[in-house]
Amino acid sequence: MDIDHMIDLDVYPTKVLYDIVGFADKIYRNPEAYAEAAKGKIMATLFYEPSTRTQMSFQTAMLRLGGSFIGFDDPQNSSVSKGESLKDTIRVVSGYTDIIVMRNPMEGAAQAASLYSKVPTINAGDGGHLHPTQTLTDVVTLFNKKGRLDHLTIGVCGDLMHGRTVHSLIKTMSRFEKNNFVLISTPELGVPQYIKDIMDAGGCSYREVNTLEEAMPELDILYMTRIQRERFSTDQAYLAQRGVYILDRKKLRRAKEDLCILHPLPRVDEITVEVDDDPRACYFEQAECGVFARMALILRMLETPKRALKPARPSTHPVDCANPRCITRTEAYIPKSFFESGDMLVCAYCENRQLI
Amino acid sequence: MDIDHMIDLDVYPTKVLYDIVGFADKIYRNPEAYAEAAKGKIMATLFYEPSTRTQMSFQTAMLRLGGSFIGFDDPQNSSVSKGESLKDTIRVVSGYTDIIVMRNPMEGAAQAASLYSKVPTINAGDGGHLHPTQTLTDVVTLFNKKGRLDHLTIGVCGDLMHGRTVHSLIKTMSRFEKNNFVLISTPELGVPQYIKDIMDAGGCSYREVNTLEEAMPELDILYMTRIQRERFSTDQAYLAQRGVYILDRKKLRRAKEDLCILHPLPRVDEITVEVDDDPRACYFEQAECGVFARMALILRMLETPKRALKPARPSTHPVDCANPRCITRTEAYIPKSFFESGDMLVCAYCENRQLI
Amino acid sequence: MDIDHMIDLDVYPTKVLYDIVGFADKIYRNPEAYAEAAKGKIMATLFYEPSTRTQMSFQTAMLRLGGSFIGFDDPQNSSVSKGESLKDTIRVVSGYTDIIVMRNPMEGAAQAASLYSKVPTINAGDGGHLHPTQTLTDVVTLFNKKGRLDHLTIGVCGDLMHGRTVHSLIKTMSRFEKNNFVLISTPELGVPQYIKDIMDAGGCSYREVNTLEEAMPELDILYMTRIQRERFSTDQAYLAQRGVYILDRKKLRRAKEDLCILHPLPRVDEITVEVDDDPRACYFEQAECGVFARMALILRMLETPKRALKPARPSTHPVDCANPRCITRTEAYIPKSFFESGDMLVCAYCENRQLI
Repeated sequence: MDIDHMIDLDVYPTKVLYDIVGFADKIYRNPEAYAEAAKGKIMATLFYEPSTRTQMSFQTAMLRLGGSFIGFDDPQNSSVSKGESLKDTIRVVSGYTDIIVMRNPMEGAAQAASLYSKVPTINAGDGGHLHPTQTLTDVVTLFNKKGRLDHLTIGVCGDLMHGRTVHSLIKTMSRFEKNNFVLISTPELGVPQYIKDIMDAGGCSYREVNTLEEAMPELDILYMTRIQRERFSTDQAYLAQRGVYILDRKKLRRAKEDLCILHPLPRVDEITVEVDDDPRACYFEQAECGVFARMALILRMLETPKRALKPARPSTHPVDCANPRCITRTEAYIPKSFFESGDMLVCAYCENRQLI
Repeated sequence: MDIDHMIDLDVYPTKVLYDIVGFADKIYRNPEAYAEAAKGKIMATLFYEPSTRTQMSFQTAMLRLGGSFIGFDDPQNSSVSKGESLKDTIRVVSGYTDIIVMRNPMEGAAQAASLYSKVPTINAGDGGHLHPTQTLTDVVTLFNKKGRLDHLTIGVCGDLMHGRTVHSLIKTMSRFEKNNFVLISTPELGVPQYIKDIMDAGGCSYREVNTLEEAMPELDILYMTRIQRERFSTDQAYLAQRGVYILDRKKLRRAKEDLCILHPLPRVDEITVEVDDDPRACYFEQAECGVFARMALILRMLETPKRALKPARPSTHPVDCANPRCITRTEAYIPKSFFESGDMLVCAYCENRQLI
Repeated sequence: MDIDHMIDLDVYPTKVLYDIVGFADKIYRNPEAYAEAAKGKIMATLFYEPSTRTQMSFQTAMLRLGGSFIGFDDPQNSSVSKGESLKDTIRVVSGYTDIIVMRNPMEGAAQAASLYSKVPTINAGDGGHLHPTQTLTDVVTLFNKKGRLDHLTIGVCGDLMHGRTVHSLIKTMSRFEKNNFVLISTPELGVPQYIKDIMDAGGCSYREVNTLEEAMPELDILYMTRIQRERFSTDQAYLAQRGVYILDRKKLRRAKEDLCILHPLPRVDEITVEVDDDPRACYFEQAECGVFARMALILRMLETPKRALKPARPSTHPVDCANPRCITRTEAYIPKSFFESGDMLVCAYCENRQLI
């Protein structure tokens, strides 16, 4: 099961996903068996913006496999900020290490890095674009708690318009048979149409509701995320509705006995602290599952035979990506690359769409 | 010998202290025997304020036991500062690691963390409150140099009014038979009454002197700390007296041949550099002993069987802690908890005392 | 082959250099054989100013030998900046670890540290003074690519007046038989006279040219470095000449088939990105060779038996070093020490020369 880089979970067929989830479960049941599986291997954690949680999860995964790590998490202080290109850093670091984990504020940065990396590269977040190991964590947790990935009624609550985490989860869970989504949000912050199209295409049903309470009784899973104050249409709307999207003990009264409450963390106040003691609160176990998910992914990637570097597919359209946060805008040497999709050009790095 | 958390050395009986000191000595004599004693174990070093020395001492201890570590030391740059509660960080990190070492500027933070940690937790300093492994280091060093912990004449020099390190050392050494303290300070910066009460209760004698020189001839141990300029009553007093509390080669002339000079480090100018070459200068060896002290503590804590989380004893007094630096003032979800002591309420976290 | 400290490559005889280069080559050919050669050993990486690349190279080397590391790279945030002397930090850290790697902005800092370190100490850059493992990396790379260190025609391009890296490389390569240097620079930024004297003394020929193109056909090695805009005599000169010192595909047309292009990295624009795909571009392999060079050095130093601390040779001249960036100017306790050289006094730390 070859995984040369993990930039975007969606490019891998469902059987790869099943393989990683099953492997994570196997490691979870017998971690000692893998305590030296990556012995002698070095991971680089290149964090161009700090994300302590994600970084610690990857580092823990590597240590639990008997490997070790180098890296940086504060490029402000580091000589990396002294004008070295992403390419040069990746070329050098992929000569030092066996696997690279990179977080970068620019969208498409991980895809760009994979062009220059001699070792497997994992996207640990490229701006607001993708964060595949968060979704992998979610899926591994679902399997761990429910024993299956299909025929589940999954509530997702929060800002469904802008939430990257939620979009990615819906996309991935729509691959599995007969999942049913309950989309809990204000009318203004509902899921975008293309996400609905994905659920339809996957044969998954969904309905949109405006309160946690009306969704509660039927849910197998409740995936909580935050709605930021500034996302409400007016301050008045915020003050009137904020409580509607906060999970507390009272709202849980109508929930199933075996509901599984998830949250990508960090939470602010969207789940009250009292809920933590409810056995249905699974968000801290979710963080633990994230370590097993990453252990499985790292091992599968280390097993993948090395390949020659693949150059970017050159663009036949002499344009720049229109997204100001695209990595191609700050690193000029990266070859432009687009896919055509109808009358749209899709940037091969950040997936920004522009008219041809 | 169960040590579930190490928040405050004083809550453990003397036999626990003897056990750790003896174990540290055993490791000191044969470190190779413990080179893989913590193999496969991960320590988290969560430093909410930087303390490079303490952090390096813990990390060295863990590496010398064959373990490894993750963590952070600059929460300004880390996502931990993005509003995550102490509880959530501890819950997540205790799902990643086998032991947690935390330094935090808020008083009582370590006690609060222990409510939420599934793994043994060590207080590496909670504001100006406690720093038990510094005292453990001091005691391990004393035993290493003197072969005993009792019947010692111990000089402590510096700001004895405010010095946490000195208070903690006196409290701990007062547990052992017939120790005799010489308290060297300005009259204004003498030890507080409650410390005198502790020496009395322990059957230890003490006397207060105003110069290093008059104390010198009788001392087995001299524990040096700093008096900061701003602690003198006037600038005039500072200029007149500063030299009195600086240890130099001249003052050492009247000292015993086997005097043992300690200092918690970092020093500024309270010991002159020329003293470093005197065989009685033990402060650098003291730093080394700190590694063995921490190795012993870590191993004992890793051996302690896991227990269920113990909730805080709920308060029967509906008040807030009056200490503005108490962790309960910034983390509102932490259950208030007080002990009664005469007509005082003592905060179970920061030990601040207020009238009932 | 005893190497107690590595402060300055020049103080070691050529046979030591050959030994390290040969050993690095041996490790390069069979790294698995050394995967546990430093097991249980701890390296301290004390970076008083950040240098992510150098730090990662040392850390990778230690991990590839089965060792581990502690350290800091941002003393701004660390308690090290709270007024602790270099001496105290080195004394403490050399009690924790088995080998110290230090980078420090003050010139002579590594030499000073070696006075107080109980363990082998490596200079990873002391201000603008020395950086011996960069030169070691260069030499190991040359041997790796060319199979010899003599009878080579070596072009060095850039600011040859101020370039520490280039001076150090010329000094070292002048030790080997019949090397021939081509010095490529503007007339104003040519090598200083004392470097010419060294080449003469080593029996190495050299010539100075003003363009990359005229040098190209005869070169076995081309060592590229940067000329900073502010080094040109006028802005006009910069705009007129900048392209002359930029290596691009066109200039390579006249180069030998087996030219080896090196660069200490990071590059800015002195080598165009298109050159990276040329098989003669060896600068990324050079970074990899740096890991093997450091592995060899670390192992040799760990093998060296411990010695007692050697005090500085006391100065017979009651003067201060005139160099404001000398470590003796900020750390007053360091004993002054000078060598006489003709009518000059040479500081034993920073090598600054002043009239007697």
